[in-house]
Amino acid sequence: MAFDPASLRFNEAGLVPVVAQEAATGEVLMLAWMNAEAVRRTLATGRVTYWSRSRQDFWVKGETSGHVQALVEMRVDCDRDALLVLVEQAGPACHTNRRSCFYTALRDGDEVVIMAPMA
Amino acid sequence: MAFDPASLRFNEAGLVPVVAQEAATGEVLMLAWMNAEAVRRTLATGRVTYWSRSRQDFWVKGETSGHVQALVEMRVDCDRDALLVLVEQAGPACHTNRRSCFYTALRDGDEVVIMAPMA
Repeated sequence: MAFDPASLRFNEAGLVPVVAQEAATGEVLMLAWMNAEAVRRTLATGRVTYWSRSRQDFWVKGETSGHVQALVEMRVDCDRDALLVLVEQAGPACHTNRRSCFYTALRDGDEVVIMAPMA
Repeated sequence: MAFDPASLRFNEAGLVPVVAQEAATGEVLMLAWMNAEAVRRTLATGRVTYWSRSRQDFWVKGETSGHVQALVEMRVDCDRDALLVLVEQAGPACHTNRRSCFYTALRDGDEVVIMAPMA
């Protein structure tokens, strides 16, 4: 069946949440958002492109930092309201220079930073 | 630092998106939502508990199906507006009986089902 980005179930802001996962290791890198056009651009270019809610503009991941995400595969969930992108992440995914944005674990009621910034 | 669920950045509906990942394999199972009380209950009980947007009620994953998610670890992202839960998933995570909800891949413009329901 041909995929139509308009067939996704976007929220009231026209966005779907997108989980980025490192293809080779399975590490979950970040969660961001796409609108229909960002989905189209990501599939057409092979460069993961989000919608920045703070800037209200397209966000070609790594465009300024060089920390690009090359798309390996995009997947849709059963409800068509979330996406998973398998990627090859260049450098850190997180703006804190960590590999993943999920670097804070909750252990015994405390927040524990479990990942150091990359050198 | 002590973790306070109220310190998360919830959306206008009081929810944060939550990525569930199988702890042993790294497989991304599903994306769902929690409010502050669902976060508290998940941490207190070790049973992953979401907020069902369709039912507008707490959703103890697997409560009716038996396909429970035992919490291994919860992580917060850098912006504090998304969560990752590492879990031990009993049976399929998806209501279609598939291990993961992300069973549809987009390949060459087509939707391809890449995962069969579990026996």
